[in-house]
Amino acid sequence: MNNTLEQLAIHTITTRPWSAEECIAKYSAAGISGITFWRYNFETSSPESLGRQAREAGLEVVSLARGGFFPAETRLKRQEAIDDNFRAIDEARAAGAPSLVLVCGAFSGQSLDESRRHIHDGIAACIEHAQQAGVILAVEPLHPMYAESRSAINSMQQANQLCESLGNHPNVGIACDVYHTWWDPSLEEEISRAAKSGNLTAFHICDWVTPTTDLLNDRALMGEGCIELKKLSTAVKAAGFSGYHEVEIFSNRWWKSDQDNYLSAIIASFKKI
Amino acid sequence: MNNTLEQLAIHTITTRPWSAEECIAKYSAAGISGITFWRYNFETSSPESLGRQAREAGLEVVSLARGGFFPAETRLKRQEAIDDNFRAIDEARAAGAPSLVLVCGAFSGQSLDESRRHIHDGIAACIEHAQQAGVILAVEPLHPMYAESRSAINSMQQANQLCESLGNHPNVGIACDVYHTWWDPSLEEEISRAAKSGNLTAFHICDWVTPTTDLLNDRALMGEGCIELKKLSTAVKAAGFSGYHEVEIFSNRWWKSDQDNYLSAIIASFKKI
Repeated sequence: MNNTLEQLAIHTITTRPWSAEECIAKYSAAGISGITFWRYNFETSSPESLGRQAREAGLEVVSLARGGFFPAETRLKRQEAIDDNFRAIDEARAAGAPSLVLVCGAFSGQSLDESRRHIHDGIAACIEHAQQAGVILAVEPLHPMYAESRSAINSMQQANQLCESLGNHPNVGIACDVYHTWWDPSLEEEISRAAKSGNLTAFHICDWVTPTTDLLNDRALMGEGCIELKKLSTAVKAAGFSGYHEVEIFSNRWWKSDQDNYLSAIIASFKKI
Repeated sequence: MNNTLEQLAIHTITTRPWSAEECIAKYSAAGISGITFWRYNFETSSPESLGRQAREAGLEVVSLARGGFFPAETRLKRQEAIDDNFRAIDEARAAGAPSLVLVCGAFSGQSLDESRRHIHDGIAACIEHAQQAGVILAVEPLHPMYAESRSAINSMQQANQLCESLGNHPNVGIACDVYHTWWDPSLEEEISRAAKSGNLTAFHICDWVTPTTDLLNDRALMGEGCIELKKLSTAVKAAGFSGYHEVEIFSNRWWKSDQDNYLSAIIASFKKI
């Protein structure tokens, strides 16, 4: 059975040329059910206002992207990162988003082990604030090609271990993005492990193409590439996940195209999964 | 204790602007101990001749790169891949190389599971020929960013499982390349596992930099990037590996530079590991 629009949410960065208000109007008119804001949206409109506008347009606010980036060179900078995550948690609450996606962080010159300790300790320092705000901190494992620059958490197994080391706290979860994880032979097993512990809180989709000409902004629309989306969609549902499929595509190619046609293409490709 | 030149080998592709004969002369003059040929070297000189020239110059022929690429769309193409690996094995023997590096293969449109079956079966079909030739088939796990295009074997754990599924045959081994594996939290454990089973047969070094501007040809010289080379060099030695550190760098940037200066830089950076 194919997916229906009740299960479809879109990250505003997917249609980056549109303002948050345009995203709300266009997604709603197209019959899409959920929206995930990015923090850059709040540079021009408040989280409260955008959250209200989305709900008035019939959209559920699914999540806010993104917090994280805990590893840093000094204790002061690590505290600044935690402070910024507190602000992101507050913004998520203000927008009515039940979840904040975490890109956990890493930087050149620091060992992976040390970055992983900073990530663990940074999340631990944010849990109480997240709990008070009613926001889940959703750890997103990033592709190993970002291990130096963006996240030292690079597999579902690591994300599971991180959640477990934090006591499977109800305000810590995992955002499983197929772009980052599709290659992993233990992916389905780790999806199941996450779901069983109540930690699978988000599912992001897009596609991978070869050649990938840009490490950041050359993601593809579902169906253009090699990711076995139907298999993975079935796997998360079979594991008990009943949340949205969130479309999160960074693509210079698609951003240059007509965004209305692009939105139609997103919907058409989603229905085929 | 730092590394010495007795442990240093270089892949001819690292200094691609040089012919195989130039590589032999330059590496030898610089006091380097080993050389790994690439099959393109045999387009202009025979493996027998290059192997003899290397030994006469005091270089050990460490390996031949590369065979593999077993997954294919049809049974005929899979057989052609096996036939080509037979030829590569023969070339390795002719050059006096005790090992053939395998980039195992993958292609868009085929599931990872199916590609992994093709890889297993392809290697199995080559073992007897490799044994007769006295050549080890060294599975090289490739970075997950190549899972669609070059290899569906993307971690040391997978390579270990593959070797084990082939009965830990003495003519099947693993080439552990830090570029592909450095991000993996289980890397040291899997290095130890490979060594204990007698499967750790090669160790390749270079470095990873951010931003990586080209998925194929933007590798860095040791010390330029983030890979914890001293830790990993120590780990392979502690696991019992006593073979060469093979420098394998694909770099548009370095290929454009003066290759004599580059060779000096390779030696200087290797000594610091």
